[in-house]
Amino acid sequence: MTRINTLGVSVPIVQAPMAGVSTPELAAAVSNAGGLGSIGVGATNVAGARAMIEATRAQTKQPFNVNLFVHATAQVDDTRERQWLEALAPLFLQYGAEPPAALKPLYTSFADDDDMLAMLVELAPPVVSFHFGVPSFDRIAALKSVGCVLFASATCLREARQVAEAGIDMIVAQGWEAGGHRGVFDPANADDQLGTMALTRLLVTQTDLPVIAAGGIMDGSGIRAALALGAEAAQLGTAFIACPESSADAAYREALASENAHHTVMTRAISGRPARCLANRFTQWGADELAETPDYPIAYDAGKALNAAAKAAGESGFAAQWAGQGAPLHRSMPAASLLKQLWQEAA
Amino acid sequence: MTRINTLGVSVPIVQAPMAGVSTPELAAAVSNAGGLGSIGVGATNVAGARAMIEATRAQTKQPFNVNLFVHATAQVDDTRERQWLEALAPLFLQYGAEPPAALKPLYTSFADDDDMLAMLVELAPPVVSFHFGVPSFDRIAALKSVGCVLFASATCLREARQVAEAGIDMIVAQGWEAGGHRGVFDPANADDQLGTMALTRLLVTQTDLPVIAAGGIMDGSGIRAALALGAEAAQLGTAFIACPESSADAAYREALASENAHHTVMTRAISGRPARCLANRFTQWGADELAETPDYPIAYDAGKALNAAAKAAGESGFAAQWAGQGAPLHRSMPAASLLKQLWQEAA
Repeated sequence: MTRINTLGVSVPIVQAPMAGVSTPELAAAVSNAGGLGSIGVGATNVAGARAMIEATRAQTKQPFNVNLFVHATAQVDDTRERQWLEALAPLFLQYGAEPPAALKPLYTSFADDDDMLAMLVELAPPVVSFHFGVPSFDRIAALKSVGCVLFASATCLREARQVAEAGIDMIVAQGWEAGGHRGVFDPANADDQLGTMALTRLLVTQTDLPVIAAGGIMDGSGIRAALALGAEAAQLGTAFIACPESSADAAYREALASENAHHTVMTRAISGRPARCLANRFTQWGADELAETPDYPIAYDAGKALNAAAKAAGESGFAAQWAGQGAPLHRSMPAASLLKQLWQEAA
Repeated sequence: MTRINTLGVSVPIVQAPMAGVSTPELAAAVSNAGGLGSIGVGATNVAGARAMIEATRAQTKQPFNVNLFVHATAQVDDTRERQWLEALAPLFLQYGAEPPAALKPLYTSFADDDDMLAMLVELAPPVVSFHFGVPSFDRIAALKSVGCVLFASATCLREARQVAEAGIDMIVAQGWEAGGHRGVFDPANADDQLGTMALTRLLVTQTDLPVIAAGGIMDGSGIRAALALGAEAAQLGTAFIACPESSADAAYREALASENAHHTVMTRAISGRPARCLANRFTQWGADELAETPDYPIAYDAGKALNAAAKAAGESGFAAQWAGQGAPLHRSMPAASLLKQLWQEAA
């Protein structure tokens, strides 16, 4: 059982990985300020992941976290994919484009990626974390043998028990409030939609692992609340989106600063898995859409193509503008200053 | 602006009203132990409400809270009601019964009940709280003129602003985790489903009223978390269901102590308004059911009839077994002991 301070992290704040938003610069800034910075490499290949890890290491001597997606292997289903593209076709048409002829999984699950494992074993980042599930015992043993401390997210007690049984060191309790992809292991299961308050307390009392609370935490008061619930640390994602070190584009930052921040939507329409997004054209369409999505991340191929077509026509409302329910409380400042301020507020 | 301690409440714990579960005995026990006990009179008539208030007052000299439902007046819609009864008919049949020939609203909104107002003005309970909306300025002024302190629940910032504009004294921030009826003002609006962590912090920072946090709070750690978020007090409902002073029946207590407590469902199927219930036969059916429910509480007439028919045949799974997401953390002990323990844990 590894506690957060034994990692050499002085401030119990984890910057959430946020693939596509976080950067080595963001992670390093957070880690250098005493928190635990994270990069998300789930949506890139081995070369991309290696470059991100090396770039992070070049900017900090402190521990940082490398996050991987461990989703079930996407199942190709031509009929479902054709129907999904047909459902999306009117949206493409609206922006003078056509849907792609076929869809492919955009990236490989860590469960299937031996090269990614070999690279991680070679580079041995201080913390490796998993989303959407836990890898096999072999992979876990390989990472532990080179000293990686392992986190995995859980959205309910059943998943938390799987995390514990897998030999993971800490659980990220991802509440319903949290932005981005919900870490549910099997999206076909009914989701109990546990809020951060209930989930954190359940996992702290009913498992033996240290818990990191995530979801709806935006400031020092939220961090204190997470610690009061018995969490070892608080994980904040949305709080860091507007930092200059993030790779969020101008439209995303604008949406985050708008009234839309008060209305986030959990939708499968963008990627094929439930994810919380700022209310926009895509979530609006998704709410009305009943067709079954292709498997994650096959559906994401369509979602990204639609976003590209819409953006080319000047419409940014089909982007994956992930955000949690605390979005209206975000602040725009350099990550190091934000981390310092968060911890001053909490103390 | 009235703060919780100016009411003469020494422990910042509110026992949630829970119409149908709470009793004058429960409310008095909580108030006598230094918290704020509550009775829910929204589902009864003036005579019933008067009797409950008098019974509470007979058992405590401390402040207590009387909760009212302020839902929009139910609109009769013969077609919708007939279709709903047709959808329920197979369930009735399964228990050798027939659906009622017609449905009626089971009780009157406080917005429409002048006699209830007159009785409250006469008895002047220390705290009066509102669910599903806020009453007219006249009614608020009448209650304030006799010294009642007023609370109203809100599930989002928009509702919280309406509460503030109405001249209410404190806001109950009801998070997504909370059991029983969700206090949304207009169930036709899209629900942002804000968790307690995010909602409490939003309302504390974006309104001027004191906030009582509700939803997923089951123990002293949860109470400390609520206070860390800036709430004046924590409201707990599910934590009190298993107290001997509650009127929960044996089947309800059994369900609460079972694995079902890990799976609560927000459903409109039971009453016509979203409410969080322990997973049971009714929530299972409701999840699959797509027909539009009659208005609240017209649908509840059918739900209660179905529960009566099922119970007569030995099936308790159609009861309104309301509970929040923290249900697995409930404890079964006298309310005064529970309150004492909660506050010791929190301190």
